[in-house]
Order: sequence, then structure tokens, then C-alpha cells
Amino acid sequence: MSRGTPKPLSGFPEFLPAQREVERQVIEALSRTFELHGFANIETRAVEPLDQLLRKGETSKEVYLLRRLHEESEEGHAGMGLHFDLTVPFARYVLENAGKLEFPFRRYQIQKVWRGERPQDGRFREFVQADIDIVGQGELPFHHDVEVTRVMLHALGTLTSPDSIGLPGFTLQVNNRKLIQGFYLGLGISEDDGGVENTMRVIDKLDKMPEAKIRELLRDEAGLSDEQVDQCLALAAISAEDDSFADQVRELGVTHELLDEGLDELSALVRACAPLGNDRVRIRAELKIARGLDYYTGTVFETRLDGHDNLGSICSGGRYDALADDGRTTYPGVGISLGLSRVLVPLVNKGLLVADRTVPSVVLVALPDEESRVASDAIADSLRANGVPCEVAASAQKFGKQIRYAERRGIPFVWFTDRDGNHQVKDIRSGEQVDADPQAWLPPTNDLKPTIVRTDNQ
Amino acid sequence: MSRGTPKPLSGFPEFLPAQREVERQVIEALSRTFELHGFANIETRAVEPLDQLLRKGETSKEVYLLRRLHEESEEGHAGMGLHFDLTVPFARYVLENAGKLEFPFRRYQIQKVWRGERPQDGRFREFVQADIDIVGQGELPFHHDVEVTRVMLHALGTLTSPDSIGLPGFTLQVNNRKLIQGFYLGLGISEDDGGVENTMRVIDKLDKMPEAKIRELLRDEAGLSDEQVDQCLALAAISAEDDSFADQVRELGVTHELLDEGLDELSALVRACAPLGNDRVRIRAELKIARGLDYYTGTVFETRLDGHDNLGSICSGGRYDALADDGRTTYPGVGISLGLSRVLVPLVNKGLLVADRTVPSVVLVALPDEESRVASDAIADSLRANGVPCEVAASAQKFGKQIRYAERRGIPFVWFTDRDGNHQVKDIRSGEQVDADPQAWLPPTNDLKPTIVRTDNQ
Repeated sequence: MSRGTPKPLSGFPEFLPAQREVERQVIEALSRTFELHGFANIETRAVEPLDQLLRKGETSKEVYLLRRLHEESEEGHAGMGLHFDLTVPFARYVLENAGKLEFPFRRYQIQKVWRGERPQDGRFREFVQADIDIVGQGELPFHHDVEVTRVMLHALGTLTSPDSIGLPGFTLQVNNRKLIQGFYLGLGISEDDGGVENTMRVIDKLDKMPEAKIRELLRDEAGLSDEQVDQCLALAAISAEDDSFADQVRELGVTHELLDEGLDELSALVRACAPLGNDRVRIRAELKIARGLDYYTGTVFETRLDGHDNLGSICSGGRYDALADDGRTTYPGVGISLGLSRVLVPLVNKGLLVADRTVPSVVLVALPDEESRVASDAIADSLRANGVPCEVAASAQKFGKQIRYAERRGIPFVWFTDRDGNHQVKDIRSGEQVDADPQAWLPPTNDLKPTIVRTDNQ
Repeated sequence: MSRGTPKPLSGFPEFLPAQREVERQVIEALSRTFELHGFANIETRAVEPLDQLLRKGETSKEVYLLRRLHEESEEGHAGMGLHFDLTVPFARYVLENAGKLEFPFRRYQIQKVWRGERPQDGRFREFVQADIDIVGQGELPFHHDVEVTRVMLHALGTLTSPDSIGLPGFTLQVNNRKLIQGFYLGLGISEDDGGVENTMRVIDKLDKMPEAKIRELLRDEAGLSDEQVDQCLALAAISAEDDSFADQVRELGVTHELLDEGLDELSALVRACAPLGNDRVRIRAELKIARGLDYYTGTVFETRLDGHDNLGSICSGGRYDALADDGRTTYPGVGISLGLSRVLVPLVNKGLLVADRTVPSVVLVALPDEESRVASDAIADSLRANGVPCEVAASAQKFGKQIRYAERRGIPFVWFTDRDGNHQVKDIRSGEQVDADPQAWLPPTNDLKPTIVRTDNQ
């Protein structure tokens, strides 16, 4: 038994039923789209051995460790931690099951992840991510980079459709690591002393720092000359909705084999994906995107939610030429991870998105008196047999009260049966009441499941 | 990047894609049934404050504690733990949101739970539970006990249907705490010195110990006389598929007000639910069922899976008159929890249940040469627009190899387009190949999603 009045735990968002319905419909729409593209669903366990989790240097401080309450040895302490993303567990899953999987392996995974950080604005300790990845065994042709981009654009297009969830629009920003690295190398920045890596790390902070500070860091930390700084900033300023970015890059006069490769890949990606854009979902070559983490080796993605720049990138990823390696075989991959909670929790908490009812029930079967419960249950079962979610009134109150019971939950129909066994169903939104047969009656299709209501003008 | 060849973690089951599909279809069928009965879905966070988790005495040793990797204070140590069931978090959720919920509140919750125990046969450290509960504010009439039983019978009936997942049959065993307690009190067993509670605890072990040992414990630990022992064992031996159990109880000659109340409730429950039974799902009054945990106050449930007695009860629950209490209001509840992993993991791991393909794709769009990829993608998009999951061949191998690519994944159809733009689709199971229009072609409905194959004779 639970006692007292508990308070919410900061960083661990939870939804009321009508809010959870928004999340469920988003997950359903994503799953549906991913499956239309042949992606299989998997789930991995919540825990990973700590040595796996700590490989990805930067995030190690955010890991939650597990310990059994009455653990006697200290061993349990350091043995396992909760996963902080879905990429590390997926890479482990691929290696563990490589002999049983068919490659290229397309999978999607929608699960909670945990990060033990101090919860700040928009930061969660528990949140849901939706990841798609394609992994090859030994090799993975570039066309799969195009494929994952198309799939995510399709998915975001579905979520933003006014006929579906009606999320705000998205801009998927793409770049290519080969392009940046090749450009830096062509500028004479050295790879050996960490110059390329440091330059990329500083450029990645362009959105967070004033340009003067960036210039200073490029000079002092990456060791760039003033001319190199100018060129790097010129590259980072390039942005286009089509492949015209390539000409802009070439006008900077830098040449390198790797730059050419990157330009070719990014151009091909933008050409293949731009036609999928519309007024809600756009793809854009954005040459300042670098992604801090160091394992990306080609295409990189970030995504902005229109009108919610403060959320940062809500959908990121890229190509990694070595997602996993078992000593004999390398598994290259390309994938994108959508921060579901990062998008939904703020919108839902502000009341911008909510379901129009708090229960799945389309019909409340009214109860004339407690003795009629068996008959009302039978009516409800007839409706359910036709796929109509419904519930029988909890008590035999006056019909006016039963109607208000339905209203409070957003249930659109109330079913009445008189003493002679005549059935009528009332749409309590319009007040219209008509004869109906419990074996045959169906509500309008739109009423079968809760509708997500979007209110931008709150 | 993940390296080496990781080994599975004992107690943390994971599925391959075709196995996960079984679990997904089970979850989908359960969710669908619960929603047909008006149950709203919620999810609660994975963690609870430790003081909430430790209330339920017996399981405290199984809790996983969380600690941040670089936690400086010892505070983080004891602050939070992973939930070990869905009842404790639900009770907390009800109290936390009581002002925003409508009562009676029907919810279902399908989530992972964690127990830090040593993994033994059939014991998991991470597993999925599917819970339904109805909670009232202040009061909750008995008819809701009947309701949850009917809902779970409906759900189990769906899972066992050969047209659906085809799980083995179930027997839902019911009893009533008032009946047992009233009987013991009527026998003169005292409530004050723990006699009733100790008797119940010993009787709960009937399946695990020889009768002689039970007799000894009833005498020594519960302080019963030989006659009382005989009567308690006689009560526990009663079992019936209808309300005839009540006459058998009355023949034992014990009377008590609470016994009458329990007999009335259990009889009403069995009468209302027995008609929902069939050759796969049965309900049975089983008077030895007591449930060890002490918060049940009326109806109690256990469930056995046919042919898998070793799994123990895979679906348990009951009525609790005080699920939660905020000092002003008490929230009574009645619910059942289905141990999804407990049922599925053994069946799936033995190969008894598996999906007939490893990918959602119904169609593999063949690729004549790499230059045709754009055209093949367009065909795939046409099929997807009609709701047909498909994928384009990963490389332009010979058609024979592309067909084998589909076969290995269980994809039933391969789509061919010749140089003149004529389309044909081949059912690779039958070999039949017919003309088809990518804008209009649909597979047989049965092929739209993977079918669960049940193989009992492995």
C-alpha cells in the first residue's frame, strides 16, 4: 500500500492517460512507418556491463550503476549500469547475435534510456528514444545512408501531418564528415596533432558561442592560422535546401580527395531526399553540423523542431564505419535516433497536445438499475465483438449523471436500453439519439480511437 | 563501438527479431482487449523512492538500487531503486494524480520490472508484466471484481485462440480471502495471535510440501488442533468449475458471517465468469489459493498454464481494500498481473512459438542493376502508400540470389520489373508469378503481418 501524497521526481516525466495516448499514437505511427520500410523491431535489456557503457568517454559520468540492496560483495557495484542510449546496446546485440541475423540488418528500437545527470531545463533522467539503424557485415553501401534519411523523413512527415498527430514541422540538417575533414586537410590543417579533430570540436560549438570566441578557440586550441579560421567559418556558413551547396564549397578553392568524396555523398543524399520534403518537413545541407561524438565517419544528421530551437537537435545520427567489431568482422552502420520525450514532454506539458478522451471507451452503456448489470454487460460484449471499445456505467445513477460521467471522460456515445429491450444510442456532443442494434452498430471510424487535439493558441 | 564477442547476461532475456514479433503480437492482442473494456494505458517511471519499494516487506531484498557513477554523497545510494512490480508504482501514481483522475479508474500497464535475485530456473532479473487494475476513490463495488476477471478471461481467450497467437490453455483459479478467514474464524482459530495469518501462510505452501509437513506446520507454527488441521485441509481440497463448491464448504459445518460473505462473492464471481470459459480457458474455484502477500482482502487469483505447471502461477492478483491512502481518502482496488515474460520466454526459447519471417517486409522489390535503384525505390513507395511493408534488394545480384535473399528472411513476395516497365510479382512459396500494378496490388490480408507459428512437436 502506498501512503501520503508523493511528489513527482524531477527528470522522470510521467503522463496522465490522455497525455500518454499522444505518446502511444506517436509510437504507433513511427513503428508503422519503420515497418513499411522493412525495419524489424527489437528490444534490448535495460542494463549493460559497465565496461561497454564506459567506452563512449564523454557520457560515462551520466551512467546509473545498479546494486542489489543486500549485495555483500562490492563487485555488484561496478558490474552493470542502465543504458544511456540505444546505440551501445544495439552494437552489443549485433555482435552477440551476428550468427543469427541476416545482413544488412534493419532494426528499429523504441525504449527508455537513463542518464544520471542533474535535471535542467529540457534534460531528463529517463526518456524514450526511437532509433533506426541499418548495419552491414563487412560492408554497407552508401545508398543505405540515403535510405535511413528517407525513412526518417517519411516518419517525421507522418507525425506532422494534420490528419495524424499534427506535430510542429521539422528541419533535418545533414552534413558529411568526409566533406569537413577533407576540407580541413585541403586547408593544410594536420590530422596527426589533433588539428582536424579539435577544429571539428570547436565548430560544433558555433550555435553556443559568439563568433569571436570561436575564432579565438580555433586559433588557440586547434592551432589554425587566421586564413584557415576564415575558411573554416566560411564553410560552416554554407547552407542550402538543394545540392547548390557543392558549388559554394568549390568556390572556396580548397581541394582534397576526401572533400570530393564527401561532396559527392552529400549531394547524392540531398538530391534523393529533397523531393520528400514539404511545408512541414524539410531537409537541408547545413555545413556547420559536425556532431561532437567521434565515431561518425560520413553522413551526419541533426534536426530542429520548428518554433522550438531551445530543444536543440531532437533527432540526430549518422554513418559509423565501425559500429561493432568482433576481431574478425567489422559491422558498419548508419542510423538516426529521435528523442521522443525531448519532443513530446514539453509539448504535452504545455497542453499543446492532448487526446480528446481519457479512456479508450467510445460508448458508455448506461445502467437503468443494478439488476440490469448482466444485460448491460451483454450489450457491451456485443459492441466489443465488433471492435467497439466500451464500458458499462459504474453505478445506476440518474441518466443525467451517467451522461455527465461520460462527458467528464470524453466518451462520445451513451447507450440506452428501455424495459422493452429497445436500444438507442446518443451522441452526447450533438445530442442526437437514434435507434441502434448492439449486434451491428458502429461509431464513425474517426471516433474509434481518441483523436489528438493540437492547441497552438493556449 | 562494441568489440569482442559479448555473452548473454543471465536473467536478462532478449529476443531475436522473429521472437520479438511473438511478444509484440501478444502485447498488441492484450492492449486491444484491455482497451475494448475501457482500460486506459499508462506507463510509470522505472524508479521509485526506496521507502516506497521497501514497504512490501518480503521482496525488499530483490530491489536494485541506483547510484550515479560519480556520485559524491552516499545519499544517491539509497535514494532510488528500480520497481520490482507495477502495483507499487501504480499506487503511488494514483495518489500523486488523484485530483486529475476520474474514478473508478481503469488502467492497464505493460512494462518491464526488475528483481535483483539470483537467476534460477524460470526466474528473471528483468521481465515484462501486463497489469490491469480498477481503482475506486473511497469505495469500489464488488462487481468490479467480476469485471477484471472477465477482462482477463477475454484476454487469455484471445491469446490462446488458434486464429491469434495460439498459446497453450490457461486455468484461472479463484478464491476469496473472506471465505478462508471466515472459515478459520468459524473454526475458532484466533486472529489476535496471528493464528489466521499463519494458517493462511502454511496453506499457501500446499503445492510445495508434502501433506505431513503441512500438518506439522499447522500444528506447530499456527497452533492448530488436529481437528482444525483436518478442517483446514478439507477446505483447501475443495475445487469446482461452478458454484457447487459452496455446498461442499457448507457440508464441513463451519459457520461465520465473514465466511458467508466470502461464499456469496466467490459464487457470484464463478457464476458470472464460467460462461466465458471454453476448452482453452477455464475458471475454477480453488479453495487452497491464498496468495502469500498480506494486502489482499477478498477475491484472489492464480493462473496455471496447461502443460507448464513448473512455471507456477503466471497470472495473479486480487482485491485490496486499501491499495493507497493519502490520509484523507482510501483507494480500494482489484487487479490481475500477467507475467508475460514468464509465459513467453520459455515457449519462445524452446522454439515452440516464432514468427514466420524475421522482417516486417511482405515484398522484396528486386533490383535489376544499381542504376535502377531510384525506380525500385519508387515502386516500393507506391506499395507502402497502400500499406504494404517492403524493402528494395540491398544489391543487384542475380535474381536467383535475390529470391534466396527473400527466402532467408521469410519474405513471401518478390517484385520484378522488366526493361519495358512491365511489373510482375512472384509468390516464392508457390512459385506463382502474375502481372501486378504497383499502385494497386495488395497481398492477401493474412500476409500483411508475420504469422505466429506454433510448433508443439519439436
